[in-house]
Amino acid sequence: MARPHPGESAASGPDTHVRVMFQPHGREASVLAGSSLLEAAACVGLTIETPCGGGARCGKCRVQITTGAPDPGAAEAAVFSEAELRAGWRLACQTHLDASATVYVPEMSLFGSRHQILVDFERAETGALCPAVRKELVAMEAPTLDDDAPDLMRLEQRLGRVSVDAALLRELSPKLRRSRFQGTAVLADHRLIDFESGDTRDSCYGVAVDVGTTTLVGALVDLSTGVERAIAARMNPQVRYGDDVLSRIRHASEKPNGLDELRDAVTGEVSSIIAELCERAGVRAEHVYEATFSGNTTMEHLLCGLYPAALGQVPFTPTFARGLWFPAADLGLPIHPRGLAYVFPVIGGFVGGDTVAGMLATHLDAHEGPTLMVDIGTNGEIVLAHDRQRWAASTAAGPAFEGARISCGMRATRGAIEKIVIEDDIHCSVIDDAPPVGLCGSALIDAVAELLHHGIVSSRGKLLDADELPSSVPDALRRRLCTNAQGEPAFLLAKGEATVTLSQRDIRELQLASGAMRAGINILLKNAGIAAADLARIRIAGAFGSFIRRGNAQRIGLLPLEVERSRIQHVGNASLSGARWALLSTEARARAEELARATRHIELSRDPDFDIEFAMAMIFPDLD
Amino acid sequence: MARPHPGESAASGPDTHVRVMFQPHGREASVLAGSSLLEAAACVGLTIETPCGGGARCGKCRVQITTGAPDPGAAEAAVFSEAELRAGWRLACQTHLDASATVYVPEMSLFGSRHQILVDFERAETGALCPAVRKELVAMEAPTLDDDAPDLMRLEQRLGRVSVDAALLRELSPKLRRSRFQGTAVLADHRLIDFESGDTRDSCYGVAVDVGTTTLVGALVDLSTGVERAIAARMNPQVRYGDDVLSRIRHASEKPNGLDELRDAVTGEVSSIIAELCERAGVRAEHVYEATFSGNTTMEHLLCGLYPAALGQVPFTPTFARGLWFPAADLGLPIHPRGLAYVFPVIGGFVGGDTVAGMLATHLDAHEGPTLMVDIGTNGEIVLAHDRQRWAASTAAGPAFEGARISCGMRATRGAIEKIVIEDDIHCSVIDDAPPVGLCGSALIDAVAELLHHGIVSSRGKLLDADELPSSVPDALRRRLCTNAQGEPAFLLAKGEATVTLSQRDIRELQLASGAMRAGINILLKNAGIAAADLARIRIAGAFGSFIRRGNAQRIGLLPLEVERSRIQHVGNASLSGARWALLSTEARARAEELARATRHIELSRDPDFDIEFAMAMIFPDLD
Repeated sequence: MARPHPGESAASGPDTHVRVMFQPHGREASVLAGSSLLEAAACVGLTIETPCGGGARCGKCRVQITTGAPDPGAAEAAVFSEAELRAGWRLACQTHLDASATVYVPEMSLFGSRHQILVDFERAETGALCPAVRKELVAMEAPTLDDDAPDLMRLEQRLGRVSVDAALLRELSPKLRRSRFQGTAVLADHRLIDFESGDTRDSCYGVAVDVGTTTLVGALVDLSTGVERAIAARMNPQVRYGDDVLSRIRHASEKPNGLDELRDAVTGEVSSIIAELCERAGVRAEHVYEATFSGNTTMEHLLCGLYPAALGQVPFTPTFARGLWFPAADLGLPIHPRGLAYVFPVIGGFVGGDTVAGMLATHLDAHEGPTLMVDIGTNGEIVLAHDRQRWAASTAAGPAFEGARISCGMRATRGAIEKIVIEDDIHCSVIDDAPPVGLCGSALIDAVAELLHHGIVSSRGKLLDADELPSSVPDALRRRLCTNAQGEPAFLLAKGEATVTLSQRDIRELQLASGAMRAGINILLKNAGIAAADLARIRIAGAFGSFIRRGNAQRIGLLPLEVERSRIQHVGNASLSGARWALLSTEARARAEELARATRHIELSRDPDFDIEFAMAMIFPDLD
Repeated sequence: MARPHPGESAASGPDTHVRVMFQPHGREASVLAGSSLLEAAACVGLTIETPCGGGARCGKCRVQITTGAPDPGAAEAAVFSEAELRAGWRLACQTHLDASATVYVPEMSLFGSRHQILVDFERAETGALCPAVRKELVAMEAPTLDDDAPDLMRLEQRLGRVSVDAALLRELSPKLRRSRFQGTAVLADHRLIDFESGDTRDSCYGVAVDVGTTTLVGALVDLSTGVERAIAARMNPQVRYGDDVLSRIRHASEKPNGLDELRDAVTGEVSSIIAELCERAGVRAEHVYEATFSGNTTMEHLLCGLYPAALGQVPFTPTFARGLWFPAADLGLPIHPRGLAYVFPVIGGFVGGDTVAGMLATHLDAHEGPTLMVDIGTNGEIVLAHDRQRWAASTAAGPAFEGARISCGMRATRGAIEKIVIEDDIHCSVIDDAPPVGLCGSALIDAVAELLHHGIVSSRGKLLDADELPSSVPDALRRRLCTNAQGEPAFLLAKGEATVTLSQRDIRELQLASGAMRAGINILLKNAGIAAADLARIRIAGAFGSFIRRGNAQRIGLLPLEVERSRIQHVGNASLSGARWALLSTEARARAEELARATRHIELSRDPDFDIEFAMAMIFPDLD
């Protein structure tokens, strides 16, 4: 049905989806054919550890592909015996999937597994499990006249010096006596969070939250094993105050109680997510001791209730830069009353904690060769790492990628066309196999890329008139040229209960969005003194990015054609992965802080070349 | 009227009061004749600095005695010129007052004066003004595209790294912009408490509070100069739940909401004191950034809302030992919303922060020669310093010294006989010159000491019958032997609207109280391996102690007769002085912590000699 496009190697496969079932976790990922197994695992929240950065050197990312195993490569033949290879053992970092598969992931290959701790502890490698919150079993003698040390001093004889807030100090004496001085101390850094009766070391949880402008995703993680126990996503209820960050900044700055409304909306929904996660995993909320948050700069400010007005005007100044660590009660979160909240550091007004978390999760400081990370969305973030330096920028791509300002655009929900292939006629995939009612961002890119391919749209973005079309265009496609309800030239994509068309103006919106992103990429490349062809790899982060077909993104010029498609990988929700990692490792948290501080923030609009780069990037590449 | 008693040297003077007016402060002290000028100053809240410990070596405690100057001693002749001596210049540490006087105290002689800062800073001596809370003027440039550092980072470029709580972070962006990035940072340690518009360095205050079982005393102090701006005292409203600490511990432990009632009572009254202090000094409450608290262990626990049940039973275990430093808001205090509270460290269940503060204020770690500090009250605290070691103990002396359990006893309020001299007949001083209605603790000691002197009470404490009296007893006194309303043998002290008598049982109560204190002193001396005669000095701390006549305290055996009376000094409310000092100096605070930790807590009841010492100490010294 689908066929290879020009410029795509057969090896990387066409942009169709394959299903990957991960065992023993029982999670199924649907990813583009040719995706790395690492990406597929990341999409369902499994972080396979790759201390060498995916270079097939450390051999730690072993998995067993029980059905659908591709042929092994030379690196794998060097690591595994022939019998192992026959049994489907492969290195996840080397495996790209062209067909659906079932994959067994041994616990020791997962980041944060118990086994991992030992291995990593010995090797002193990154990725060891060292959460900020830890539990310690404490067995003390009760005071006597011969040993009459005060309660806190007695505890500190076991724990070392700790700080205790007034609320816990008030309960300490009765807590120690009720538990007969035997119990579990809960510590964060040198802060004593609680003293619990008996041995509760098995009940130690945290929540990682990706605070998106549109979507909130939370994951409940067992801090003693690193295992994710539940994951849940909800719409960010702030959308009722505006779709994009600027309208929310205006609401918070100009409306009475506007800031409180926005803060309460997001903290309320996060609280509800936490309650749901605990309910599903059978975990008591008071056994959740920490929450980590990654989001863009505005989302983090609103979450914390910080006035965002300065983020809405030149020079877009955030209140904070370093990550914040304060009582979760200050955010009104329903976890342990003395639990903590960590909010990711930000780089600038439009390069926020979600980008830093993504840099952390994609090991952007550890790869060899120039690496580009892009998070495509209304606000596109771009980070380039090269030669131990990093540059970051944000682009106001506009909401076209989210389906907004597109005549028949919609979010990627039921009824949205999410994939379009054009051969003799059009083939659409609709979310939930429902009758089509509009198209979402990934299908917008597909439609324009295919129309370019068929010569129906010119490289300058003009939807050609019927009499301008090349003769090769099939009649079925010619008949789809039309005029939409607004009287504009358009192309009919689907007709059912609703008529879905792509208009000339829609193509212009995509040109603006794609051109802005690409111009940003080019400016960062210029700052690093390298060309697009030098890029060793591109990582596409973010929920929206996961649905983009790489070949089509390259076809419209959003991503450089010079980079071989197999070197472009989807990494899924890297913001959430980073937040989860920060939950499990203070060392990772320190790296996040370092990444944020040692990344140069490039203000694209101030680059003298930006305008010309933007204009050039709006012209689609001339291929055919 | 008054005459020298046997055993008193003429130089130290009889136990009469003299009035000392301090200028330019306009404060008048009424102290015992022979008192040190340092003591007299301390009684009205003026701390004259004595870095050398009062040894006439540093010459820093200069004062000018404009009327009533005693003859200068050799040490003073070495320091001052003849003209200066004629003009009344003396060293406060060397001056003992036998007559009323007017004293001018230059600012540079006062602890914490502006001049003092410079002097002490250069000499790196103790006592320099280095409060935990400090203000710093900060002038920054507003952010631009060229200099777009986040707000907190911009501030930290001036202040160094600070921690900021969520509440301040929420206000930071608008605060900086309203003040056009020019203002005053308020810091405590590395904590940013506030950023205030303009230059507010002159408005930086703290409150020191002595939390007594009976009385609360608060002092408002200018942290930028060390000058005390106002002082106020109130009854501790917890007395309605019981006079002594044990009944309050019971109330807190056994009654529903008992702990909350006690906490709210004391924090409410402290709040009211703070409001009064601010009102009187014309200071805004939000310019008070810190409060320091010294009290006995139970008072400190109740102030902080800590469960005191474990303090009420063997082995009397406190919750904490190290001093506490947490948000004043946790105590509900009406100071700056991010102000702090420091609560003094404790040594044991019955040797608390008030004793530690007293040790700090009396330089107990700096004197040469064995030094005894006693705080005489319902709970008597005793500290002995010798040869770089310290021992501390508490004695349950009972409430006799407070006037309780005495047939005609009362607190030292209007109508209380507070001083008794017996010659041919009785001479009583009554508080406020009111008609006498009872006697307070100091008069109880006076009465028994005088009756011992006249042979009307035996050394075993028996109030002799009329036929047992020595012939030297004047008739006027003989006629005062009587039987009180309860049918007990008694001695008539005063008769007016009320009849005030001293009963046999009252004498027994005093024997118990005095014996307990003295036994404690003896046990500590034994621990240090020294005798009473070895003591270089005795410091009497506490409000009650200030009214005790030293000769009479020695006469009944409460204090050792072997110590020359001039070496016994009243130091006034040393607990408040220590709290004030901690407010002005983090270095002093560190010394308080060190004093608390490096003092051995002696549990008197466990000493095998205690019972015999107690029994022996109840017998009055046999002098006459």
